[in-house]
Amino acid sequence: MNQDYIIPNPWSIIEEGFDAERVQSSESLFSIGNGAMGQRANFEEDYSGETFQGSYIAGVYYPDKTKVGWWKNGYPEYFAKVLNAPSWIGIGITLDGEKLDLATCKSVNDFKRELNMKEGWYKRSFNAVTKNNVEVAVSVTRFLSIALDELGAIAYSITPKNKAVAIKITPYLDSGITNRDTNWDDKFWETTNVSVQDNTAFIEAHTLKTNFNTCTFMSSTVTKNGQPVSITNSREEEKQAVLEYEFEANANDTILITKYGGYTVSRNHDKSQLIAAAKQTLAAADSIGFEGLLQRQKEEWAKIWEMSDITIEGDVKAQQGIRFNIFQLNQTYLGTDSRLNIGPKGFTGEKYGGSTYWDTEAYCLPFYMTTKNETVARNLLKYRYDHLEKAIENAEKLGFSNGAALYPMVTMNGEECHNEWEITFEEIHRNGAIAFAIYNYYRFTGDYSYIPEMGLEVLIGIARFWHQRANYSTHKNKYMILGVTGPNEYENNVNNNWYTNYLAKWCIDYCLEQIQKVKDGYSEDYQRIIGHTKLTDAELDDWKKVASNMYFPYSETHDVYLQQDGFLDKELMPVTELDKTERPINQKWSWDRILRSPYIKQADVLQGFYFFEDHFTTEQLEKHFDFYEPFTVHESSLSPCVHSIQAAKLGRMEQAYTFYLRTSRLDLDDYNKEVEEGLHITSMAGTWMSIVEGFGGMRVLEDKLNFFPQIPENWEGYSFKVNFRNRIITVKVSKTGSSYQLNGTEEMSIRVNGERVVLKPGETVAV
Amino acid sequence: MNQDYIIPNPWSIIEEGFDAERVQSSESLFSIGNGAMGQRANFEEDYSGETFQGSYIAGVYYPDKTKVGWWKNGYPEYFAKVLNAPSWIGIGITLDGEKLDLATCKSVNDFKRELNMKEGWYKRSFNAVTKNNVEVAVSVTRFLSIALDELGAIAYSITPKNKAVAIKITPYLDSGITNRDTNWDDKFWETTNVSVQDNTAFIEAHTLKTNFNTCTFMSSTVTKNGQPVSITNSREEEKQAVLEYEFEANANDTILITKYGGYTVSRNHDKSQLIAAAKQTLAAADSIGFEGLLQRQKEEWAKIWEMSDITIEGDVKAQQGIRFNIFQLNQTYLGTDSRLNIGPKGFTGEKYGGSTYWDTEAYCLPFYMTTKNETVARNLLKYRYDHLEKAIENAEKLGFSNGAALYPMVTMNGEECHNEWEITFEEIHRNGAIAFAIYNYYRFTGDYSYIPEMGLEVLIGIARFWHQRANYSTHKNKYMILGVTGPNEYENNVNNNWYTNYLAKWCIDYCLEQIQKVKDGYSEDYQRIIGHTKLTDAELDDWKKVASNMYFPYSETHDVYLQQDGFLDKELMPVTELDKTERPINQKWSWDRILRSPYIKQADVLQGFYFFEDHFTTEQLEKHFDFYEPFTVHESSLSPCVHSIQAAKLGRMEQAYTFYLRTSRLDLDDYNKEVEEGLHITSMAGTWMSIVEGFGGMRVLEDKLNFFPQIPENWEGYSFKVNFRNRIITVKVSKTGSSYQLNGTEEMSIRVNGERVVLKPGETVAV
Repeated sequence: MNQDYIIPNPWSIIEEGFDAERVQSSESLFSIGNGAMGQRANFEEDYSGETFQGSYIAGVYYPDKTKVGWWKNGYPEYFAKVLNAPSWIGIGITLDGEKLDLATCKSVNDFKRELNMKEGWYKRSFNAVTKNNVEVAVSVTRFLSIALDELGAIAYSITPKNKAVAIKITPYLDSGITNRDTNWDDKFWETTNVSVQDNTAFIEAHTLKTNFNTCTFMSSTVTKNGQPVSITNSREEEKQAVLEYEFEANANDTILITKYGGYTVSRNHDKSQLIAAAKQTLAAADSIGFEGLLQRQKEEWAKIWEMSDITIEGDVKAQQGIRFNIFQLNQTYLGTDSRLNIGPKGFTGEKYGGSTYWDTEAYCLPFYMTTKNETVARNLLKYRYDHLEKAIENAEKLGFSNGAALYPMVTMNGEECHNEWEITFEEIHRNGAIAFAIYNYYRFTGDYSYIPEMGLEVLIGIARFWHQRANYSTHKNKYMILGVTGPNEYENNVNNNWYTNYLAKWCIDYCLEQIQKVKDGYSEDYQRIIGHTKLTDAELDDWKKVASNMYFPYSETHDVYLQQDGFLDKELMPVTELDKTERPINQKWSWDRILRSPYIKQADVLQGFYFFEDHFTTEQLEKHFDFYEPFTVHESSLSPCVHSIQAAKLGRMEQAYTFYLRTSRLDLDDYNKEVEEGLHITSMAGTWMSIVEGFGGMRVLEDKLNFFPQIPENWEGYSFKVNFRNRIITVKVSKTGSSYQLNGTEEMSIRVNGERVVLKPGETVAV
Repeated sequence: MNQDYIIPNPWSIIEEGFDAERVQSSESLFSIGNGAMGQRANFEEDYSGETFQGSYIAGVYYPDKTKVGWWKNGYPEYFAKVLNAPSWIGIGITLDGEKLDLATCKSVNDFKRELNMKEGWYKRSFNAVTKNNVEVAVSVTRFLSIALDELGAIAYSITPKNKAVAIKITPYLDSGITNRDTNWDDKFWETTNVSVQDNTAFIEAHTLKTNFNTCTFMSSTVTKNGQPVSITNSREEEKQAVLEYEFEANANDTILITKYGGYTVSRNHDKSQLIAAAKQTLAAADSIGFEGLLQRQKEEWAKIWEMSDITIEGDVKAQQGIRFNIFQLNQTYLGTDSRLNIGPKGFTGEKYGGSTYWDTEAYCLPFYMTTKNETVARNLLKYRYDHLEKAIENAEKLGFSNGAALYPMVTMNGEECHNEWEITFEEIHRNGAIAFAIYNYYRFTGDYSYIPEMGLEVLIGIARFWHQRANYSTHKNKYMILGVTGPNEYENNVNNNWYTNYLAKWCIDYCLEQIQKVKDGYSEDYQRIIGHTKLTDAELDDWKKVASNMYFPYSETHDVYLQQDGFLDKELMPVTELDKTERPINQKWSWDRILRSPYIKQADVLQGFYFFEDHFTTEQLEKHFDFYEPFTVHESSLSPCVHSIQAAKLGRMEQAYTFYLRTSRLDLDDYNKEVEEGLHITSMAGTWMSIVEGFGGMRVLEDKLNFFPQIPENWEGYSFKVNFRNRIITVKVSKTGSSYQLNGTEEMSIRVNGERVVLKPGETVAV
């Protein structure tokens, strides 16, 4: 842990005291979002200290020209950059001619931030003495509306405490923004129109190259002791729209600025209608009012929590951690728009770029599938279906043909963004996670319709890829997959990564099964798909040859599958024997040293055991866990969760809990020393999995929901809800006994610790 | 072959006819150099067409900030760029107010270029009609003096043919130059002083960051029909120094501009003395005169050719090809300055950067060793000795210790420049070539003194590296070298590359031998070295363990050593079955496809068989050649020569000759479609090897010089000289019989086709 200034609280993230050193970390941690947009917790008033300004609109990106040292054929021409958008939050405050700026104030007292996760708002308050000795009390509440998702609202109250002052308040819009993350310092935005109308303002700007048209808008009203203050001036500058309220205030007068703002975007409106749409949103805001909007916000978040909350008794830091994870996931993605996905930093930073990684299928899908309506998970799957053509083109660039699909490592619009050959071209296991997600969706939701409608075509593209990517080794009389990078990115260009080979075989087998199933049950879909894909029996026979003769590296001595060919040739020294000064190895060692070492960045063979748990015995899991975990450095945010789940399955609760802490408070306690760059959004789903699948032991086995509940030593209990096939089960696990409760109208049987439990609607069954 | 406009001629490179499309190719092919500087064959007068301006000073470089997509620990901060230097060749010609510019002339007739390799000069002549209808005949001779290596000379003659004209002649210097190859468009040069004095001019400029101070200088004289023409004006501009001669000339008046120019550099003079040194050089040039300088040039080149020429009878293109290779090698490096080395493009372009690759030791050393005095080869070895400390630092950056040395992949000053992890960190076999060169030098020259004086320390650093780089595999009970790239760069991060493992073992064994030998015979050196390196017997024992238990991948089925672990798992389809549209694969395939294919860029296992020929039987060579050559795409300029030598050794003269043609006319016929970027200098040494070691079969076996002469079908014969242990042997091979002749005073025995032949000084022995 590298910081511990966040005050433990079950429902809020709280910071007390102003520390300029922490500003950028807190800007990340107190970020807010509503799925359609999000922003770092930048100050509304001017701040001349170190800050990382960030305001992001879902799906609005810039194709930044690729930067490499040495070009390789097949590299994408650009990297889709997450874009810092024009800012609408700014409110300049001038007191007796001096700007309010916490970096220059003589003193800042009672500084407090609170991110209220239960109700979805962020509040900041402080007392400050300016350079020119004006004492003020400030309190600001801000939220991005879930109900009206183009809208954000700010209530900024300021009270001079020691004397009468001349106040100037300047709410403004600013499109003169830049990205931190840029390859060539390109200009990303073009401002085309700055317009002020009464107490509203609009800046129209479009992204260069991608031509996303946006209107950033605001309105403001100012009152003094409840009485309206009039606008005294306004300005349309090149990249700013500014309203001005200049007036006198006495000591203890309360001035309240209510500012509404947000974005309308050509993704959702005709580009000629962006200002009109903005005006409509502002009118709606005006008619509902700040308190009304805040009330709706609380209601919307109550709905989200109703289903997704996890309670933990007896461990407030663990409670705060899990809620922070669930809250941020919901701020990032609500599943209402199938064109969107879950970026690794969400709306909290720019790093990594792109919005979609295999994290979505492998880590995020289970969270959304379990805590929301199945349409949300279906939207995540549809996203990939909509990108199938691009995935086929992507595979063609790499020499594949006949409709073979390779989904990109990183994408925003279906095209590959990433440019490291060992990742872009070789970390192909991502294709398997996408197929696995289809299987997992059906297994959990029971909704088969996705497969004949869309999923089967995705599965066929993927199966074709694996069939073509494998090659026959005369020497071993087996099919092999050479030159890959597995989930453990501390190995590059290896042969026969077990996880990849296993997934590849499974993808083909599963696709063959589904072809038969669709043929048998959905003949219209079947005809359409066969027409499209021109699948023949001969092709299927070729697939079968590959799947049934796939090679899996295995050690007889250790009775384990080998992560890849040659793994045993390494110097197999466990991580515990590494000197602490050498850690983390990705900061201390050169890349070749990492590659030839046995050290594992994140679950690789064990990722396969996680996906396909029911293919292996617990003894096999234990053997593999004991073989690989000692070499695992967990230097990926996605690593501890899988290991936590498996440690729990093996009954090693202490180890499971240690992994859980590492994943759940990764950002709050800044384990990776980088929280100022943004939060690790996708790994937050892994945290959720650690409790529900790890401690709670939730599994779907033979079509039934199963639980194997356990409880960490220092907890009193925990609870969570599961939406399984449109039935909601509330699970409460505590030291004094566990209970299961079902909503709905029909009874349902589940299994707890292998025993059949019949749940009747409404009844709480203690087990 | 992609071009064939070069007219075959045994001693000259000739182009006839003006074609703007060929200008940049010819600028490369007609490049001139004298080891200390060099320049592309840019026109002296203005040229507004497509041109690649290039003028280079040996050892003057700029550390260009590294550009990568994704940074890896251990990458160097900069890449030493070969720098385009201020130009001194410019001579503006204005005729009746119109610039002479071949790109805008109404007609250009009788355009001819000749690079006279025998005498070391470059001549260009043409008749042109300008836009304003002035007809002129121009003839320009230019050379860079070998005798005075800071000096170049130009005799530019121009004759108006159709009428009297007003002529303005403006010889100038220009430091407003840029690089084509730059990572960030940095400014590389700072001009500090522009000065004109009478008919001379000087521009002082220094490189940024590296602070190489240079003075670019010139003098000019103009005559009309032999009578001096006076300077009418001169200018000192920001980055130009210009002299002006304005006068009238009648039709058929002959105007001759004699321009001397060149560079004085702070590498060789105190920086305050650069202009003074330039003046001295100009004074020397003046007193010798153009014709006198040209005469000396012919003499110097006669001396070079006396020893290094190869004659070929009956195949003028082959003759032209080999001389072009020998000529360019000598233009690039003459071996008089141990701070310099042999850049892959010499003085003919900017690509690749750096000046030193393993090409020097593996390919160039044999050429210089055999055709020059041994001090030249010794200077090449000393270069690496001088960089030993940097090589140790380089290894430390990658986690090695205790004086282990890793020489850089690409360097200018001993520091690593290159930034691809798979090359920079993993193509470590380069270290072996450096040790091999020490062995090779002693074997050929018989000069052991280098080893106790310098070489042993290099060998120890290298042996320490291999000892640390190998790891013990419990599993196989052998030492292995994991995660490397061999000479075949179409495989990255492989385990147990046979060539690398073999070299590593050999390096340790050879170093141990030399330690013993120095201990026994050079006790003072031994004490100094032990004091330095703190070598202990225990350390040597550890080395021995690694060397004697090294693992070598081997296939029983094929009875061949495997290029690396897992080679047989590939889809082993020979190159001949590849569709032609797929070639060259490095332009047509994505990198992952290349990596998992069996295709070999250049000799890898066979490079080992080339170095260590005497460790293997001819049957073994044949088996390995027949196994690997069919997978070899020869997409490196360094590939055909090794295969030519081995095909010759196997008596496959047709194949050997095909490989020879590909290497010897690589640039003249532009096989790789890139000659406009510069020439492939280092591979030219490979061409020389193809004849001397391939067709001539020259070897050193048991301390004796051996020849196994063969002759390509279409040749009448060929001859070359060899400086073996300070004795010069002239070899003549012809269809009617071969002969060997020795200079000097003592007799010497050699072997021809295994038979002992005694050579008496001066006698020609027919064999």
